[in-house]
Amino acid sequence: MGRLSTLFAPERVAVIGATDSEGSVGRAITSNLLESFDGDVVAVNPYKDDVLGLRCYDNVGDVETSDGIDVAVVVVPPDAAVEAIRDAGAAGIENVVVITAGFGETGSEGAARERDLREAAEAYDLNLVGPNSLGVMSTPRGLNATFGNEMATEGDISFMSQSGAFVTAVLDWAAERDVGFKDIVSLGNKAILDEGDFIAEWGDDPETEVILGYLEDIADGETFVQTAREVTQDTPIVLVKSGRTDAGANAAASHTGAMAGSERAYEAGLEQAGTLRVESVQELFDFAQILSGQPLPDGEEIAIVTNAGGPGVMTTDAVGDSDLSLSSFEDETLDALRETMPEEANIYNPVDIIGDAPAERFETALETVLEDDNVAMAVVVACPTAVLSFEELAEVVVSQQQAHEMPIATTLMGGKSVGAGREILSEAGIPNYFDPARAIESLDALREYDEIQSREYEEPATFDVDRERAREILESATRRDTNRLGVEAMELLDAYGIPTPAGGVVSSPTEAQELAEDIGDDVVMKIVSPDILHKSDIGGVEVGVPPEEVRDTYEDLVVRARNYQQDATILGVQVQEMVDLDSGTETILGMNRDPQFGPLLLFGLGGIFVEVLEDNTVRVAPVSEPEARGMLDDIESAPLLRGARGRDPVDEDALVEAVQRLSQLVTDFPAIVELDINPLVATPGGVQAVDLRLTIDQEEL
Amino acid sequence: MGRLSTLFAPERVAVIGATDSEGSVGRAITSNLLESFDGDVVAVNPYKDDVLGLRCYDNVGDVETSDGIDVAVVVVPPDAAVEAIRDAGAAGIENVVVITAGFGETGSEGAARERDLREAAEAYDLNLVGPNSLGVMSTPRGLNATFGNEMATEGDISFMSQSGAFVTAVLDWAAERDVGFKDIVSLGNKAILDEGDFIAEWGDDPETEVILGYLEDIADGETFVQTAREVTQDTPIVLVKSGRTDAGANAAASHTGAMAGSERAYEAGLEQAGTLRVESVQELFDFAQILSGQPLPDGEEIAIVTNAGGPGVMTTDAVGDSDLSLSSFEDETLDALRETMPEEANIYNPVDIIGDAPAERFETALETVLEDDNVAMAVVVACPTAVLSFEELAEVVVSQQQAHEMPIATTLMGGKSVGAGREILSEAGIPNYFDPARAIESLDALREYDEIQSREYEEPATFDVDRERAREILESATRRDTNRLGVEAMELLDAYGIPTPAGGVVSSPTEAQELAEDIGDDVVMKIVSPDILHKSDIGGVEVGVPPEEVRDTYEDLVVRARNYQQDATILGVQVQEMVDLDSGTETILGMNRDPQFGPLLLFGLGGIFVEVLEDNTVRVAPVSEPEARGMLDDIESAPLLRGARGRDPVDEDALVEAVQRLSQLVTDFPAIVELDINPLVATPGGVQAVDLRLTIDQEEL
Repeated sequence: MGRLSTLFAPERVAVIGATDSEGSVGRAITSNLLESFDGDVVAVNPYKDDVLGLRCYDNVGDVETSDGIDVAVVVVPPDAAVEAIRDAGAAGIENVVVITAGFGETGSEGAARERDLREAAEAYDLNLVGPNSLGVMSTPRGLNATFGNEMATEGDISFMSQSGAFVTAVLDWAAERDVGFKDIVSLGNKAILDEGDFIAEWGDDPETEVILGYLEDIADGETFVQTAREVTQDTPIVLVKSGRTDAGANAAASHTGAMAGSERAYEAGLEQAGTLRVESVQELFDFAQILSGQPLPDGEEIAIVTNAGGPGVMTTDAVGDSDLSLSSFEDETLDALRETMPEEANIYNPVDIIGDAPAERFETALETVLEDDNVAMAVVVACPTAVLSFEELAEVVVSQQQAHEMPIATTLMGGKSVGAGREILSEAGIPNYFDPARAIESLDALREYDEIQSREYEEPATFDVDRERAREILESATRRDTNRLGVEAMELLDAYGIPTPAGGVVSSPTEAQELAEDIGDDVVMKIVSPDILHKSDIGGVEVGVPPEEVRDTYEDLVVRARNYQQDATILGVQVQEMVDLDSGTETILGMNRDPQFGPLLLFGLGGIFVEVLEDNTVRVAPVSEPEARGMLDDIESAPLLRGARGRDPVDEDALVEAVQRLSQLVTDFPAIVELDINPLVATPGGVQAVDLRLTIDQEEL
Repeated sequence: MGRLSTLFAPERVAVIGATDSEGSVGRAITSNLLESFDGDVVAVNPYKDDVLGLRCYDNVGDVETSDGIDVAVVVVPPDAAVEAIRDAGAAGIENVVVITAGFGETGSEGAARERDLREAAEAYDLNLVGPNSLGVMSTPRGLNATFGNEMATEGDISFMSQSGAFVTAVLDWAAERDVGFKDIVSLGNKAILDEGDFIAEWGDDPETEVILGYLEDIADGETFVQTAREVTQDTPIVLVKSGRTDAGANAAASHTGAMAGSERAYEAGLEQAGTLRVESVQELFDFAQILSGQPLPDGEEIAIVTNAGGPGVMTTDAVGDSDLSLSSFEDETLDALRETMPEEANIYNPVDIIGDAPAERFETALETVLEDDNVAMAVVVACPTAVLSFEELAEVVVSQQQAHEMPIATTLMGGKSVGAGREILSEAGIPNYFDPARAIESLDALREYDEIQSREYEEPATFDVDRERAREILESATRRDTNRLGVEAMELLDAYGIPTPAGGVVSSPTEAQELAEDIGDDVVMKIVSPDILHKSDIGGVEVGVPPEEVRDTYEDLVVRARNYQQDATILGVQVQEMVDLDSGTETILGMNRDPQFGPLLLFGLGGIFVEVLEDNTVRVAPVSEPEARGMLDDIESAPLLRGARGRDPVDEDALVEAVQRLSQLVTDFPAIVELDINPLVATPGGVQAVDLRLTIDQEEL
């Protein structure tokens, strides 16, 4: 059990600010605790002698018990809250739930108060929930330390929410369904404990089978990814991360002051973390229910058994939309179905056992297909008929599911006639929907989680690089008092083993001449100046310069730059080996730093592909080799790297390595805020970084 | 009223094959009719004297009534069904519903029987439903001529389904919800009446507010599109067309023998027809309910009013996912909200009136935003709290909706506490969901239908073309006994005014020389032979041939062709003006003929865009000018036509005109089965068709 186990399974809970005033939050919490908590409740309020039959202490430090208090719930007014937290800490209480609002979610006064709260909590090393929280719940001990109207029923789903109102909505909704919970926490402002702490706790909790979350931001993306990767090896995490859209992100910022991280970083980070991200409340609970109720499939192949052709087709379409695939039955299966099903039946998948099928025929068909090695899961789709009892069908499905221990979902397509059948299924953990698309989406979530569970997260490779040289180059910018670097920093890439064309930046015609002679062929020459952004426009680029013209070209370039801007800072002239762009494919490899997730790598094909078609992909760095390779698979224009239209395929391994090396560079140097290699030319023989821009934060050096 | 009005509102229905045998379909139909039909039921069965208290006639022709029989329902065995239909026709009955199965959906014997049935129906000009139908229903007269278990409740949705089982499922489901129907028809095999007939009927029916359909194929796409365009000016059509995916299409073919039309043709055709196509059963009924219950919005801007920040953010995300947009409130609205709402409230959209809001505060906020000119619709999102009565809230929402006559949906986020409120809302036609995403999707369907209703379908333009010349060129293929044509048919494009480079196909060096001199510049020369597919590979193409080399090049090309294949048919050599591909953008304009929808135009950018990125778009021809222009907007690479990356924009009007002219050509000549102009080069100055391939069906000439 994790370090928060006492928070959810305390022996004794103190309510600081307990009261019996009608309609108050303090009363609601106290009475909710008294209602069902399988432990002691201690009331603290200097203005009361007793509250709801409990003796009232003036201060939580006055409480003398043999075992101490495990959790303090703070419901005092905002100006007394920080003091109450200090009292709790001084009394040796380790867990504090701060219900009180009026902190960071309000103005600057509240923000200052939240800083004080954080200091107090850190001073006593408190596990602090909130502030501005609805509270916490845990069903095994009947703990309801919230001010909501509803206590959760027991179950194996643990749920965290950055919206307290959403907790009350979910509890109200769950009460008329068979959705039970282990622990629930309303995260509030997440001053101390955040989503990462709770997934860590529940990952260690054998009573939690599924972790659900509603989040508006993730405070520390990097830690979250690391924790989630471990947790999801055993326990699925299903999340709504709202504020996905621009409008939604603005709304989230005004709601909880959620930090505006980029949606693309969340998308990449949550995927790399192994969470199942969903977009709607319906999916959140559909996925939770099937993950809690059904085993994982051993494959992606599904059998459909139905008594109705049309709904069978709809279900097949839903399979086509998903990452599941329709099983091809083995010959023995087809033989067995041929023998046992009526002649008019369709024995191929989707199996249509036709409208006059009683429950027994469903049983025979289901048993037959579940024994097929090409079947990893099944969906039963049934329309109401005069000869079919949904109740009997439910029993048949349950017994087959239990006998084969394979995941099944059902689509009993009806309303009132479904009731009893649905209950039987629900007790056995088999979800039932009217809409076959939902059944398939839920089964697909099992497949996805199975795939996540079988992921092996490789460590990012560590290449042998010249870190000191890289630091020197970055520091040279500090000396030049700039935070933008260009091709004059190409050596940064050399230092990290990302190939660049032969060449360098020189500061005299003679040096240029010598360098060109070393290269031994025509060269490209470019003026290097932080003041000249569009070099080509001012004639600052010359391509295919023969060795004998290098001196003169040097002078020309400098003159043109001076003509353009008299006082331009000229760092020199870049002399570079010609790169054959015709036989290569231009790609872009870049990075920017996300406030939540840190360095975010971007890869795509250059030119129109990134600029017009927006065909690119991102990953949170550091990336492992498979993650880097995955970036190449992600883009739609990937076939152009792989020999589409008669081209020679480029050296993919070299591209993948360049991605990893850049990942290492930007991870090693938090000072690199943004970086773009554009183009990184990929050819059948390797890659070459032809141009570079980066922005650095000197304070991080 | 349409010609099928008597089918749904008969005075007298005969059941041919009526029986009282327990468990039989004939008994189910007879007793369903007797149960609720507000008219006379006549039983026909030569082997019975009476059935369920009705006198039994030997033959439907024996029935003598003053008014005649309006509908005959046929439930006799398959081998007697065609005779029964003839009897009905001979007796002057106009409407026949054939329940009997064993026709086209079974083997070849069934298919032959269906041909006989069709002949009989056509001989008597019968309105025939089925065969293999569950039957028809119509609530105003209590007509239940089906063998299902359930009668629909009265409402304004009319529903057709190509799956009888799906009808029974929907009726069972609808019975516990407030979903009522006007007419329902199980289409069966659609031997005579099909989806087009029913949308036409319901389009004319003032009692039908929404048309719903579950279809596996559309028999006559062209007629359907024409009819639907008219109907959807008044009545929305919401469709599930299943068999969308490859797997689903196979399943549909095995279920109803649905013809395999291309999904892309369905997608284009249904969109051009103005139908709302949905993918799931949930959407089908969500859309039906809001279309039947709520007015159309006057715009796309939505106001969100909520008592809970988190769900407000989720709702905002859903708006971001939809084609709706969040209203920007007018200053007066903000002032009014500032005055009436608590300080902690967020008065900007999404309006968060915070957790202590009673129903009255919702009323004030809702009234304020609905009076804003920038608000076209609203969604109310409420979490359960101690101070909020969902029942009161529902009343407030209903009264505001009625006062403002603007569409509203609600998200009362709870379970058991929602019941009474939901009922009040439902009676007023306001849909309620737990999941805000569904509320937004439903409101977005209103917006989409509003946009469809305001469409003006322009007639396709008719250009002045040389149709006779085009026919001659196509007929020349017949003389050559081929069905594939290439550049030798470029004049086909000239005849229809699609610009081609100067040039032609010649059959001697001298002719080549003369033509090149006419062109007056270097030319492109290509061997023209149906036997040589990859001309470049055998040296069959020469680019930039100066006039003085044309003669020799002619000889060379012919020699190379002969060397490649001694007996190749050589039609000559194409001599063509050089087209500057560098300053142009290569596009592809093509057509193939879909079995359901007829000619399907395809447009995209050439090269990698169509071949690797699959970036293209299709429309059912003939297309109007706005539809042709829409094709240019559809493709992702459209910015490349419009001056992305510093290029000059191409002549879009010329492209649009070329699309329309090709549309006219392929509509005029059904003999053209496939046609590809690749490339059609677009430049700032116009377009030029550089290469052409087509396939013709000589029998259609």
